[in-house]
Amino acid sequence: MHESMAARLGAELLGTFGLVFGGCGSAIFAASVLASDNANVNMGIGFLGVSLAFGLTVLTMAYAVGHISGGHFNPAVTLGAFLAGRVEAGAVLPYWITQIVGASLAGGVLYIIANGKEGFSAAESGFATNGYGELSPDGYSLGAVLVAEIVLTALFLYVILGATDRRAPQGFAPIAIGLALTLIHLISIPISNTSVNPARSLGVAWFAGAEPLSQVWVFIVAPLIGAAIAGFTYKFIFPDESDHLMEEIGAK
Amino acid sequence: MHESMAARLGAELLGTFGLVFGGCGSAIFAASVLASDNANVNMGIGFLGVSLAFGLTVLTMAYAVGHISGGHFNPAVTLGAFLAGRVEAGAVLPYWITQIVGASLAGGVLYIIANGKEGFSAAESGFATNGYGELSPDGYSLGAVLVAEIVLTALFLYVILGATDRRAPQGFAPIAIGLALTLIHLISIPISNTSVNPARSLGVAWFAGAEPLSQVWVFIVAPLIGAAIAGFTYKFIFPDESDHLMEEIGAK
Amino acid sequence: MHESMAARLGAELLGTFGLVFGGCGSAIFAASVLASDNANVNMGIGFLGVSLAFGLTVLTMAYAVGHISGGHFNPAVTLGAFLAGRVEAGAVLPYWITQIVGASLAGGVLYIIANGKEGFSAAESGFATNGYGELSPDGYSLGAVLVAEIVLTALFLYVILGATDRRAPQGFAPIAIGLALTLIHLISIPISNTSVNPARSLGVAWFAGAEPLSQVWVFIVAPLIGAAIAGFTYKFIFPDESDHLMEEIGAK
Amino acid sequence: MHESMAARLGAELLGTFGLVFGGCGSAIFAASVLASDNANVNMGIGFLGVSLAFGLTVLTMAYAVGHISGGHFNPAVTLGAFLAGRVEAGAVLPYWITQIVGASLAGGVLYIIANGKEGFSAAESGFATNGYGELSPDGYSLGAVLVAEIVLTALFLYVILGATDRRAPQGFAPIAIGLALTLIHLISIPISNTSVNPARSLGVAWFAGAEPLSQVWVFIVAPLIGAAIAGFTYKFIFPDESDHLMEEIGAK
Repeated sequence: MHESMAARLGAELLGTFGLVFGGCGSAIFAASVLASDNANVNMGIGFLGVSLAFGLTVLTMAYAVGHISGGHFNPAVTLGAFLAGRVEAGAVLPYWITQIVGASLAGGVLYIIANGKEGFSAAESGFATNGYGELSPDGYSLGAVLVAEIVLTALFLYVILGATDRRAPQGFAPIAIGLALTLIHLISIPISNTSVNPARSLGVAWFAGAEPLSQVWVFIVAPLIGAAIAGFTYKFIFPDESDHLMEEIGAK
Repeated sequence: MHESMAARLGAELLGTFGLVFGGCGSAIFAASVLASDNANVNMGIGFLGVSLAFGLTVLTMAYAVGHISGGHFNPAVTLGAFLAGRVEAGAVLPYWITQIVGASLAGGVLYIIANGKEGFSAAESGFATNGYGELSPDGYSLGAVLVAEIVLTALFLYVILGATDRRAPQGFAPIAIGLALTLIHLISIPISNTSVNPARSLGVAWFAGAEPLSQVWVFIVAPLIGAAIAGFTYKFIFPDESDHLMEEIGAK
Repeated sequence: MHESMAARLGAELLGTFGLVFGGCGSAIFAASVLASDNANVNMGIGFLGVSLAFGLTVLTMAYAVGHISGGHFNPAVTLGAFLAGRVEAGAVLPYWITQIVGASLAGGVLYIIANGKEGFSAAESGFATNGYGELSPDGYSLGAVLVAEIVLTALFLYVILGATDRRAPQGFAPIAIGLALTLIHLISIPISNTSVNPARSLGVAWFAGAEPLSQVWVFIVAPLIGAAIAGFTYKFIFPDESDHLMEEIGAK
Repeated sequence: MHESMAARLGAELLGTFGLVFGGCGSAIFAASVLASDNANVNMGIGFLGVSLAFGLTVLTMAYAVGHISGGHFNPAVTLGAFLAGRVEAGAVLPYWITQIVGASLAGGVLYIIANGKEGFSAAESGFATNGYGELSPDGYSLGAVLVAEIVLTALFLYVILGATDRRAPQGFAPIAIGLALTLIHLISIPISNTSVNPARSLGVAWFAGAEPLSQVWVFIVAPLIGAAIAGFTYKFIFPDESDHLMEEIGAK
């Protein structure tokens, strides 16, 4: 990447805005929309549609600006990419801050739109926040949530690092990575409402009252742990001999 | 593109016809089809299926004729592409007229087919038109609809301009752009029935009575504003040094 | 294509078998599967899942054997491809016969599996056959069915001919064509149970009693008309100057 | 492939873990999640979402590590690939053992997470195991299950061998193969809960009590038969003249 840091941060801002606006937005507005004449029929998109939406935010934004910034849109991904030697140390903090700002801006715009419907309450609706125990969509414990978020973020990073590996087919990575995020949501919305992304969790937690905010640490810590495991181990499991060469060149 | 303007307009006519016939058609015929023996079970495709249908019209038509016309199928996209320097000024008006004609033809054929079912009424069913307030599927205000349509069209254009950028992986743009339209519908069908496309809104509004037609200005103005924002800002956020070179060559 | 006619027919046999086994099979086995403890909840895949299944049969089989036979799997596609100059006249009849045999074999295997569930009756269930009037899933008239099948098959052929055009991105055609078939089903399952493919219609009609068989002519005639319109007009709307050159070379 | 056997087995371990964790996990956690205020509305992903999840595990993992190991993640695929001359004899047993270990590890982690929800019982829930007769989701007989599993695994292998053929478009195989697994599930979840993969069946059977384990032989035998049929016949149906050349080179 020979793009300027300004363009890279612009790309991360746009991408993370899109991820939260699209993923959390679909959950807030469209997951459950009962038919006007039958409360037993949900015309909305359910957990399946929300899973698809989250994945498509990454698929589309990675094709749009992935060539500018690497298309992380997620502090855990930036950490894993750094540990795997894919991004320089100096980019980590600027990326993190930009991702959290982009996610929070999206949360704010979602909040404005949601208030355009009479009777809306962010706290009552949950506002697409993550949680465990009483705040888990299907009542999973803190332990189950921690295991799920760590394992799923590690799998996510293996897909990201593998699909963007020099040896993988070129150009397909956004499809693989985006649909991996869809897969992750298909598994774990009932468990934790699915984070694997601290920025996504923070971006909506500001608006939903004290309870979700008090649990948000889980969705910062667990994704970072999962990403660190994958980022650190990837090059030992799948060594690439030309890596050494590239590192040598890079070190000069 | 070295295609003749006749071929380009043929491509836009076909593509916009397909977009409205497929997207609005799936909404009209298939969104809600109750099981013959249980009115609590919807065998139809719901908002999720309609979202997929809209996206697939663009994905498939962009692979079919995108190399002929650029694959806009949407006056807002043509505006954004013009402002970003991707299409010449002289093409804007012919594209706009062709898109509206194609969309309206599709609306007409949908109307003919829909009347092949006893008891059909375009006005009562809504005929897949867009709306706010009482005509919003889930009761969102004019303000919320304006914000959603502007933000979503801007995001759509950033994906379009980014995925067709010289620096992005080649050949994948129709996937990214089509699935971006799916994503947009996953978020906003409950809000406005999703436009982001003035031709799509006009194409069905003619057939659904006075009320939707009286609101259709929103779905002309808001998408054009959103597209203009993205089309104008794209090259400042993501400058490409070779752009200058190409413009110089083009200016000769 | 330099493949032998035996290999090409093997590819069409396999592909059309897969299309009917997968598309009609998903409709027969999985569209409606009520939850064991609540008859108001459908765990099955509905019309959305059936639409996806039909498209994926073509997407997957076209990647598997499309490079052998062209991946038609449909007599209407073979007709359109012939009229557009994409396949030689001598292949049309062998392709047609092979497609109908493959489709009918699939119908037979589906019939065997379906009878492994107690109380199954092909005639009562409909066995995924196409129909109009009383046999239309949502009660559409013969006229509406004719218009829909003709228009949708024509659109299908435009996508096929466009996505496999020399000027289109290479390698992506199976995605565009498969997902076009998904789109077509998203629109028209309620209208006619969707044919656009005479072999698909015949393959299951043998097994479902006299009524569907008496209507099957519609699903032979209408798709062939639609495909002929697109196959004949494509090269006039989107002329490719190198076509003349290729025809001259081919004529020698 | 010039990767070490250690890296190849690492890739198969990760991929098969992902397949069972994602596919079976989505079935266990997310297929059925009733709305908190209406037991007639399923917010969960149903059989459609589970079908998508299984396919996406293969699509994503094949892009991530397919270039390392070939991306089998399934003992039946390894058998078919061996019979078609795509993998060496010495790799079959190590691949098989690794796949079963990976699948069983995933089953174990799923078991831990599932127990984080009060009242969970693996035996009562079925734990995403495969079965016939009383254990078939929709009551299909042993005969129907055998036919379905054999035919579907054979079709799966034809897609795998065709899409990875030298003559097919390069880079798209993971899309074709992953979505073929989605298609297979769209057809057959009601029949057998869909195996076509002995490792997937074993990986969860350990945890669900005696009954599913007593039927698991079906889901070892039938997929291996189906894969063997396709693996053995592929090169006779679709001969590639350059194969002979490559075999001669390989034999030296």
